[in-house]
Amino acid sequence: GGLRVPEQRYRIRFLPEGVSVEVDANTSLLNAARNVGIDIMSVCGGEGTCGKCLVRVLAGRVRQSDRVAILNPALRAEGYTLACQTFPLENLTVEVPVESRLDSTDVVIRHTEVEVPEYEVGLETYQHSPLACRMQLTLRPPTLTENASDLTRLLAGLRRVTNDARTSHVTNTKGCIFGGTERPIGIALSALRELPNALRDGDWKVTVTLVNCCDRWEVTRVTSGHDAQPAYGAAIDVGTTTITVYLVNMHTGETVQRLATYNEQFVYGEDVITRIVYATRNEDGLEHLRRAALRTINQLLDHAINAMKISRDDIACAVVAGNTVMTHLLLGIEPKYIRLEPYIPAAVTYPPIKAREVGIGIHQEGHVFTFPCVASYVGGDIVAGALVSGMGLRSEVGLFVDIGTNGEMVLGNKDYLVTCACSAGPAFEGSGITCGMRSVRGAIESVEVNSSDLQILVKTIGN
Amino acid sequence: GGLRVPEQRYRIRFLPEGVSVEVDANTSLLNAARNVGIDIMSVCGGEGTCGKCLVRVLAGRVRQSDRVAILNPALRAEGYTLACQTFPLENLTVEVPVESRLDSTDVVIRHTEVEVPEYEVGLETYQHSPLACRMQLTLRPPTLTENASDLTRLLAGLRRVTNDARTSHVTNTKGCIFGGTERPIGIALSALRELPNALRDGDWKVTVTLVNCCDRWEVTRVTSGHDAQPAYGAAIDVGTTTITVYLVNMHTGETVQRLATYNEQFVYGEDVITRIVYATRNEDGLEHLRRAALRTINQLLDHAINAMKISRDDIACAVVAGNTVMTHLLLGIEPKYIRLEPYIPAAVTYPPIKAREVGIGIHQEGHVFTFPCVASYVGGDIVAGALVSGMGLRSEVGLFVDIGTNGEMVLGNKDYLVTCACSAGPAFEGSGITCGMRSVRGAIESVEVNSSDLQILVKTIGN
Repeated sequence: GGLRVPEQRYRIRFLPEGVSVEVDANTSLLNAARNVGIDIMSVCGGEGTCGKCLVRVLAGRVRQSDRVAILNPALRAEGYTLACQTFPLENLTVEVPVESRLDSTDVVIRHTEVEVPEYEVGLETYQHSPLACRMQLTLRPPTLTENASDLTRLLAGLRRVTNDARTSHVTNTKGCIFGGTERPIGIALSALRELPNALRDGDWKVTVTLVNCCDRWEVTRVTSGHDAQPAYGAAIDVGTTTITVYLVNMHTGETVQRLATYNEQFVYGEDVITRIVYATRNEDGLEHLRRAALRTINQLLDHAINAMKISRDDIACAVVAGNTVMTHLLLGIEPKYIRLEPYIPAAVTYPPIKAREVGIGIHQEGHVFTFPCVASYVGGDIVAGALVSGMGLRSEVGLFVDIGTNGEMVLGNKDYLVTCACSAGPAFEGSGITCGMRSVRGAIESVEVNSSDLQILVKTIGN
Repeated sequence: GGLRVPEQRYRIRFLPEGVSVEVDANTSLLNAARNVGIDIMSVCGGEGTCGKCLVRVLAGRVRQSDRVAILNPALRAEGYTLACQTFPLENLTVEVPVESRLDSTDVVIRHTEVEVPEYEVGLETYQHSPLACRMQLTLRPPTLTENASDLTRLLAGLRRVTNDARTSHVTNTKGCIFGGTERPIGIALSALRELPNALRDGDWKVTVTLVNCCDRWEVTRVTSGHDAQPAYGAAIDVGTTTITVYLVNMHTGETVQRLATYNEQFVYGEDVITRIVYATRNEDGLEHLRRAALRTINQLLDHAINAMKISRDDIACAVVAGNTVMTHLLLGIEPKYIRLEPYIPAAVTYPPIKAREVGIGIHQEGHVFTFPCVASYVGGDIVAGALVSGMGLRSEVGLFVDIGTNGEMVLGNKDYLVTCACSAGPAFEGSGITCGMRSVRGAIESVEVNSSDLQILVKTIGN
């Protein structure tokens, strides 16, 4: 034992916002800023090596680690320091310059007009057979002589529709939803709980949502009355830098919303390696990263839901594609051994799970399917891309290239496919360079030279 | 609007415990007693018709409904009243006589030496093929050239054991656990989260628990090292009056614990009808009943777990058999329409669910299987009984009789089975009679007449 000194706490005021936070002497300025919602770029995950979390201490004494030595002495003389390597010794006033910010309000949320690739190959074999659908049923009320249980009645009604579809090729706007399947139909407990009152409140008219999982349909939701709203599905691309959500009408196959934003995990490190290091070195680090990705996904889902004027319960299922590390982080699976020789992921195929098990903001009983990965550094994102390209069906050899923060290539045709991966982003996005920056506010967006007077017009993001 | 009088609250002291509770003027003495954990018999569910909730008001004025008129005037003159029909007008002292108590400490928890029926018929076709098992695996560590994912490695190890068992008929103490099955093996997300560290902490030795669900095995748990503990299963008989838990070693088929106690739902009404009425008429009534049954089940499971010196995570799965209403209540499914013409249950077959979905105190990722029912008043308990009796395999006609609070009979053989049900308990358990009582403390347990001196020895429960 020894004499315990009451823990000293200091107030840090961040400019230009003017917001303050009280922290102890062991909280870095980076973490203090996070606590009040100011996201500072931290490409290296707080290791003091990337130099991107530059802030300026305007008032107050600080303790700095040796690593701030990487900074230009002239900058240091002006009070600039690395937020991740600096700790308070008294109350502080700290300015966070625009260049250090991961700005989430002005630039980030944007409707990206993503080009959905056309199926050039394999379209003839492609059948619209979605993972979820919604059906309106009208059932005969029970009598004393025909007194089957509510569930038996519901399943018989669904089977009738199935059989109709099978014999008469009934289609639902586009493509066959349910026809030809002899798959068993089960029901989720929560839907069974809804069933008795939904049937009677709607005078034996109900709307039923089904999800196709593991070669069986599961009734995931039952509501009273006939609801014309189709079932939606969410396709989620979990990129290291950017997360994209596509909302798809499961009855027509139409993509009705496309939204993208920065992956909030970005504040814990730019690439997969720094994020694994963050998850490993910090208590609850994995949970921080998991929640950051979830917040980003759910924020995009909320936008899509509001834009469509639907409820989150109208999204019946989701499909997630990400690289191996992103997938591990989102599912809360230990990523540590991906980074250590011999580089082993916990899994390259993932069980179908319910939204409530991971907290994805769709109908909580809806299923979340995760694209399989190939290896530690060839993930479900490249698998999804190669699949959609149809290259695995062609005779001619194709090359599929996905350049992101991590870059992958697939070469091959219907007979073989080979793949490799590397860290691609830093070369393009400024991690290891001192001039140049990411496409955030202040970065040059376009340069135009007027052909008549040779005037140069430079536009920056956010003007 | 009008003048709102501050709500008057009164203190009720219960004897002989001497515990007090403060309630408002609209709380019956029955509910006041429940609030402090004194369980009073309430056969009719608080409707004032059974006369079993007799208490004696020793001090203080009360308000009584007309229904207390069913009581003998001499009793009323002594201060006796029906707890469910009596409300405080001032602070009270109330005595709860032994006869009115549903005594849960002295009589209730008991080791019932239940005779497990021997399989007289069909034993030759019976194969020990349990729903769960636990395996010790030793896996080869990955290398740079053999770098499959942890999950791939685990599943390959399990498949190796499967194939060994299939070709060499390896048996596990008694019966074949895994042999001959070509069923797919999946993994629960929580087990996948355990996998990477379990493998490395145990130096590539792990213990894996699997549950057989829907014709596929699911890995539900992975721990490091070789754990000699077998997987256990819980067989739970949810009776209207009594709940029984059997703990079974899934590797040997041996029943290692048998425990029974009163179903705590009893305080909300004696039979299924009064419980449905309680669930329907009271806000959160269904939830009260659900939690009461769960508390009883989990209390018994805790006893069994302590007796065996195991953890609840060692119980890999559970099977529940109850009548239709008991099953609805335990799963939290609306039971209302079972009681109303044309008497329709929500379901007679139930989805397999995870323990965490209903709160049964086994391994939370373990599966809970519910016996199918036949109709509103022929439940999964009689189905289980008829199944185990083997009567459906015999040529000779058999009669299976289950007399409980509800009684059922099944008549038939391998060609047909017919069944009927009625309310049986009240005839034997004193619901509608004024003399006689349930087998609680104070009831006569045995009468012996000494053959030499004709002395009569009467023993009562609890002496």
